[in-house]
Amino acid sequence: MTSGADILCDTLLANGVDVCFANPGTSEMHFVAALDRKPQMRCVLGLFEGVVTGAADGYARMADKPAVTLLHLGPGLTNGLANLHNARRARTPIINIVGDHATYHRKYDSPLTSDIESLARPMSHWFRSIAGAGDIMRDTNEAFAAARDGRAVATLVLPADAAWETVPAPDIFAAALMPQPPVPDAMVTTVASAIGAGRRVTFVLAGNALRAAALPHAARLAALDKVEVRAQATSGRMERGGDRLPLRRIPFQVDAAIAELADTQMLVLVGATEPVAFFAYPGKKSRLVAEGCEVVTLASQEQDLVEALCVMADAAGAPKKALSQVKGDMPDLPAGALNGDAIAAAVAKLLPENAIVVDESVTSAPRFYDASLAAAPHDYLALTGGSIGIGMPLSVGAAVACPDRKVVALQADGSGMYTLQALWTQARERLDVVTIILANRTYNILQHEMRNVGVEDFGVNARRMLNLDDPTLDWVGLARGMGVKAISASTSEEFTACLRSALSERGPFLIQADL
Amino acid sequence: MTSGADILCDTLLANGVDVCFANPGTSEMHFVAALDRKPQMRCVLGLFEGVVTGAADGYARMADKPAVTLLHLGPGLTNGLANLHNARRARTPIINIVGDHATYHRKYDSPLTSDIESLARPMSHWFRSIAGAGDIMRDTNEAFAAARDGRAVATLVLPADAAWETVPAPDIFAAALMPQPPVPDAMVTTVASAIGAGRRVTFVLAGNALRAAALPHAARLAALDKVEVRAQATSGRMERGGDRLPLRRIPFQVDAAIAELADTQMLVLVGATEPVAFFAYPGKKSRLVAEGCEVVTLASQEQDLVEALCVMADAAGAPKKALSQVKGDMPDLPAGALNGDAIAAAVAKLLPENAIVVDESVTSAPRFYDASLAAAPHDYLALTGGSIGIGMPLSVGAAVACPDRKVVALQADGSGMYTLQALWTQARERLDVVTIILANRTYNILQHEMRNVGVEDFGVNARRMLNLDDPTLDWVGLARGMGVKAISASTSEEFTACLRSALSERGPFLIQADL
Repeated sequence: MTSGADILCDTLLANGVDVCFANPGTSEMHFVAALDRKPQMRCVLGLFEGVVTGAADGYARMADKPAVTLLHLGPGLTNGLANLHNARRARTPIINIVGDHATYHRKYDSPLTSDIESLARPMSHWFRSIAGAGDIMRDTNEAFAAARDGRAVATLVLPADAAWETVPAPDIFAAALMPQPPVPDAMVTTVASAIGAGRRVTFVLAGNALRAAALPHAARLAALDKVEVRAQATSGRMERGGDRLPLRRIPFQVDAAIAELADTQMLVLVGATEPVAFFAYPGKKSRLVAEGCEVVTLASQEQDLVEALCVMADAAGAPKKALSQVKGDMPDLPAGALNGDAIAAAVAKLLPENAIVVDESVTSAPRFYDASLAAAPHDYLALTGGSIGIGMPLSVGAAVACPDRKVVALQADGSGMYTLQALWTQARERLDVVTIILANRTYNILQHEMRNVGVEDFGVNARRMLNLDDPTLDWVGLARGMGVKAISASTSEEFTACLRSALSERGPFLIQADL
Repeated sequence: MTSGADILCDTLLANGVDVCFANPGTSEMHFVAALDRKPQMRCVLGLFEGVVTGAADGYARMADKPAVTLLHLGPGLTNGLANLHNARRARTPIINIVGDHATYHRKYDSPLTSDIESLARPMSHWFRSIAGAGDIMRDTNEAFAAARDGRAVATLVLPADAAWETVPAPDIFAAALMPQPPVPDAMVTTVASAIGAGRRVTFVLAGNALRAAALPHAARLAALDKVEVRAQATSGRMERGGDRLPLRRIPFQVDAAIAELADTQMLVLVGATEPVAFFAYPGKKSRLVAEGCEVVTLASQEQDLVEALCVMADAAGAPKKALSQVKGDMPDLPAGALNGDAIAAAVAKLLPENAIVVDESVTSAPRFYDASLAAAPHDYLALTGGSIGIGMPLSVGAAVACPDRKVVALQADGSGMYTLQALWTQARERLDVVTIILANRTYNILQHEMRNVGVEDFGVNARRMLNLDDPTLDWVGLARGMGVKAISASTSEEFTACLRSALSERGPFLIQADL
């Protein structure tokens, strides 16, 4: 006989899942006890659930396999939902395990009871509450397959009695691979015909279409006349730098995006969704493509996007090998006053080979993306769902997945405060992360948006809601308080020196860049 | 003509709401602009939404009127849900305003879109999404009435276009008071008959039944033969200390609660819900009352609980005035090693008249409640829904509501890390809060629960998930990093000296008590 909790652990291990990002509670104690019996599973504690889910996202983006969380009941889940929202938008494969009361106990509505399904559904592609220990292997494998093959956030609810119940030990096996839906020939032909007819075609890439294996095919398409290739505004992971195809992104700003897409007659989505305005504004359009532009989906995230681009390039008569692209020069190291551009230049210039860049700089270093087109080859992880507070947790997960690669996080201060507890996990796990806090001491994006709605002179209430300068946050103190080495810089020269020093060491390091 | 956002502000002000706990985003900018035109509204920024909702809870508990929040879309809401869960369990009146995309923009599923209703419903008693500016005054008044008269968490969704749309300016009026449902005579008679017949009757009090005005009537009932009066295990606000009726609470621990209620033949709920086990455990009961015990509801939270107790005491033939109760002596000031009991004794002894105690000490100072039975008169605010991370936000709200009263927060370290951003708001608003961090550097409650499930020797994974000691959190550094004065104490004498010093000053102050 074996407990449901042990079956869950064993099924995860059989599927190659050996890291669990966790913040458990009483209802999960039998599962914790089972995890404690499996030292081959690495349990990583976050002191807040937003750290747990954001770390799971970063881990799965970099490990190329599903990540697992462990959360405590409805409130623990809610604390993790904002970063699950980002993971859902990134199509990151996550098995999100939420402990629940014993099934028979739910009807008593004890204080920690809430409707977990209603809370979980909006941020989950897949949801199931386990009925009993006898179902755990099947349910876990289905959750795993949904996550891996469907690129889903799969929420699996584990009631306490399903965890503690014992049943005859099953033969544990892993989830079968679900076949990928093929890319329809008809769509390939349609797009190829449009290209052949000289229509202006723009491909928008996301997901695996932004990985190194896909980029040579994207480059072939980009070499065709009147064909443009763009990256989605934000994506979970891009492999870029070095001699990889430099890709411009669909702009975040509505007018810029509309202008950029004005001439496009056919928009072809490859793992992407149709670009729309991030927010609505009075008198501005929600859709960004021009009237009459045809929008088609070549392939979706659960399909083989590398194959889709290859087949598409062949059908469109693209050259077998594209010419190298002009990327512009690398920026010089900055001097003088410290600002976002200086930081962007310094990071791009000094970025070590094979680094992982986590970018939640928001408004503070908007030119980093362009400045780093020709930087050393690196992975670039972005904020995908607009829910701030992802950067430092994402860094945790990326560093756990790739212990031999340096993680460099560009972190806006306002967003950083959402999940600063991640620094403690960085220290606890000795993760090789350099966090750069872009300390502008405002919700700068909102000050910009206030001006967009016509407010130029801020009164007391606007200042009280949009400025973070009273009191000033001391990130050096905050980082040290959680066991992370930290230093501040207020000129470009100081910053460059700090960055060199941080990059030369191993382990977590925080630089407060005073803007 | 006036905007929907202005109508919303004016309707809140007409209802006496003049504080808004906020963390806005782009979709709320028209509302922020409207708030900026009303300097009579005090906007209090939290750097994380769990601070915002917890502060709203603390404010409404102490101000005796609804609090208002302002949150940004689904993810902003989710970050605030854990503390809304606690507020819902406390039956705290809150108007929880959530900004949404413009109604016409929702269908484009832009990156920050999610199903707000599905997310909000589990933690809201009342929910509405505003259709347009013309409905805002009505909807706001209905939300306000639901919150105030129904003691509800009322979630009101404000789409961006409803905020920016302009309509003819309405005559603004406040919500009419909804009549309270009367306490049924039949139930009073039933309970009085049971008492008259010599049955063992236990009253369980919550909500306004724990306020000063209700306690003399509760004392009259407690003077009757075979009648016990208890407080619910946790409640939003208790007025206690001084010569107020000392009330024992229904124990948290299952076996203790079952033992305590074993003899009760009739359990009478006055604003309370039936006590049940907080968690299920194998082989233990979920219900705490004995088999055959009759459970009846004398009055619910939306009724007049003071009147209910008064009528009940009269009908049961209780004395017009009850004798004073024995409370035991005040503890002495502690000496020597610092532990939870020493802190409980010192705080109880030195508590200033009319203080507000916020207790999220969890396992660290379990005897504070009893040690403070005879302390100076004070209000006692507890964690009501079991969702940790409420203490420091609750302190923010209580201090905003009662600027002339000292707030003393007993804060466990693990729970405190959930919403430590509240310290920044304490500094920004110059709030008179003394936070005592009970630094035991573990999830102690979970270590206890692990032993409950039979695990005595913790392996690597259990230690990695239940200990907070690697690295050690430096709360002094964390507090100073957010602008709060802080100091640490490691003996009882040091702690007492720190506490005296903190109590003698105004403004936020944190003491890290090394246990």
